[in-house]
Amino acid sequence: MTQWISDVVGPGYAQSIQVESILYEGRSAFQHIQVAISPMFGRMLILDHAVQTTEVDEFIYHEMLAHPALVSHPHPRRVLVIGGGDGGTLEEVLKHAVEHVTLVEIDRDVVEVSRALLPSICGRAFDDGRVRLLIDDGIAFVRRTHEKFDVILVDSTDPKGPGVALFSEAFYAACGRVLTDEGMVVAQSGSYIFQRGLTKLVREHLRSLFPLAMTYWAAIPAYPGVLWSFTCGSKRHDPRALPPEQIAGRLKSVSTRYYQPHMHPMAFTLPPLIDG
Amino acid sequence: MTQWISDVVGPGYAQSIQVESILYEGRSAFQHIQVAISPMFGRMLILDHAVQTTEVDEFIYHEMLAHPALVSHPHPRRVLVIGGGDGGTLEEVLKHAVEHVTLVEIDRDVVEVSRALLPSICGRAFDDGRVRLLIDDGIAFVRRTHEKFDVILVDSTDPKGPGVALFSEAFYAACGRVLTDEGMVVAQSGSYIFQRGLTKLVREHLRSLFPLAMTYWAAIPAYPGVLWSFTCGSKRHDPRALPPEQIAGRLKSVSTRYYQPHMHPMAFTLPPLIDG
Repeated sequence: MTQWISDVVGPGYAQSIQVESILYEGRSAFQHIQVAISPMFGRMLILDHAVQTTEVDEFIYHEMLAHPALVSHPHPRRVLVIGGGDGGTLEEVLKHAVEHVTLVEIDRDVVEVSRALLPSICGRAFDDGRVRLLIDDGIAFVRRTHEKFDVILVDSTDPKGPGVALFSEAFYAACGRVLTDEGMVVAQSGSYIFQRGLTKLVREHLRSLFPLAMTYWAAIPAYPGVLWSFTCGSKRHDPRALPPEQIAGRLKSVSTRYYQPHMHPMAFTLPPLIDG
Repeated sequence: MTQWISDVVGPGYAQSIQVESILYEGRSAFQHIQVAISPMFGRMLILDHAVQTTEVDEFIYHEMLAHPALVSHPHPRRVLVIGGGDGGTLEEVLKHAVEHVTLVEIDRDVVEVSRALLPSICGRAFDDGRVRLLIDDGIAFVRRTHEKFDVILVDSTDPKGPGVALFSEAFYAACGRVLTDEGMVVAQSGSYIFQRGLTKLVREHLRSLFPLAMTYWAAIPAYPGVLWSFTCGSKRHDPRALPPEQIAGRLKSVSTRYYQPHMHPMAFTLPPLIDG
């Protein structure tokens, strides 16, 4: 079978990844779900025809969504993950000495398909005693809950389908209310090259709500444009001002491949690209 | 017209850029040449169906091929550019107080088409009194010449067509012979993600010939995989050990957009990607 999955992401720009075989295909209440095998990236989770994560490079995205905030916050005990039904972010969070992680995923099928067919991404994260899995609308959850969290990680799809509301100012404002006074939120904010408008929108929302807001990047081969953006809103702690010894100290007991101490300041230095 | 130019660069990975119109198409003695307009990247030079450079992001590639060595060498007076018929590298070299630049391009048509249709890339570089343009085989030139150069910049296509020999150890050895005792050579060495074997090959060749050899990167949106590699061989000066004040001092009179002082150490820090 020679089949390609193509993603048109910019004005006249597309990325295509060959699909050797499809392990799963179905439609949940929220979206079209596939697990497919690619020669370059191994097993891939594909939602609404967009590659979400792959066996080969998932560690980069998940490490870079989770660790910069968890290392910058002096004592993250309670963490909330919105989305992230593949469990990859959860696995990274659990590498820290956190007490509790709530994961709110809207689509039960994503969790079940990932646990069955992408075990190398979630590991045994869902079995960890510190984890509470809620199949629920993340926006409704943050609006309703009376709990408080130290760190919120927004592990969403692109702003289409069930992901749209996760890019709204109202959602980030609700995140601010459930964060402690030292709390931090990090959201994936799109391709640093092909979704500059989206990155800017997230940063503007967070800037209007948090004393500190900044974008950082990681190089994720399977994502269109490779340079991917994450945007952080913080009530007190500035990841850009983190002393190198705190990063190294925190990572001593945390095993990572991409997010190494020297990558932290590099991530917060944005390459001056085409409209930069 | 809806036409796309696709480049399959990795195992089952392709990048496609839409072509709105074609300004020039022809076959030279060496290769197929096109100048086309894309919605995202403006005018693009396409050789043997691979995008070589675009109006929108050419500054990143050309700055990053030229400046790291020209800033690391304490007094670059005589510079040799092999390939680079579009004039973009030449333009960057001439921003420094060099005395002489020889550009050896094998394909006269590339120079003529670029001067006519891509004036924003070469500027007035070819008219500069310090420039000698030779339409010749770069390998033959370095084998034959008795001149000496401080810096050699290898601005080649991919290793196919006329570019193949520019990736050979014999060529780099000949470069070594025409470099002064403090000389440096820099070669573009392929996609950091999809041509890892090529990057490694160039580094191994240069390591076997020069006391110092190292790879650095830049983010170039129009190139497949975005993260692009350059590899430097140096007889004495180590760009990684360059004091920040030397970089800032040298760039005071050199106007750049991507290669700014803080980008120098970042370029020499390689992100730990898929094969570590």
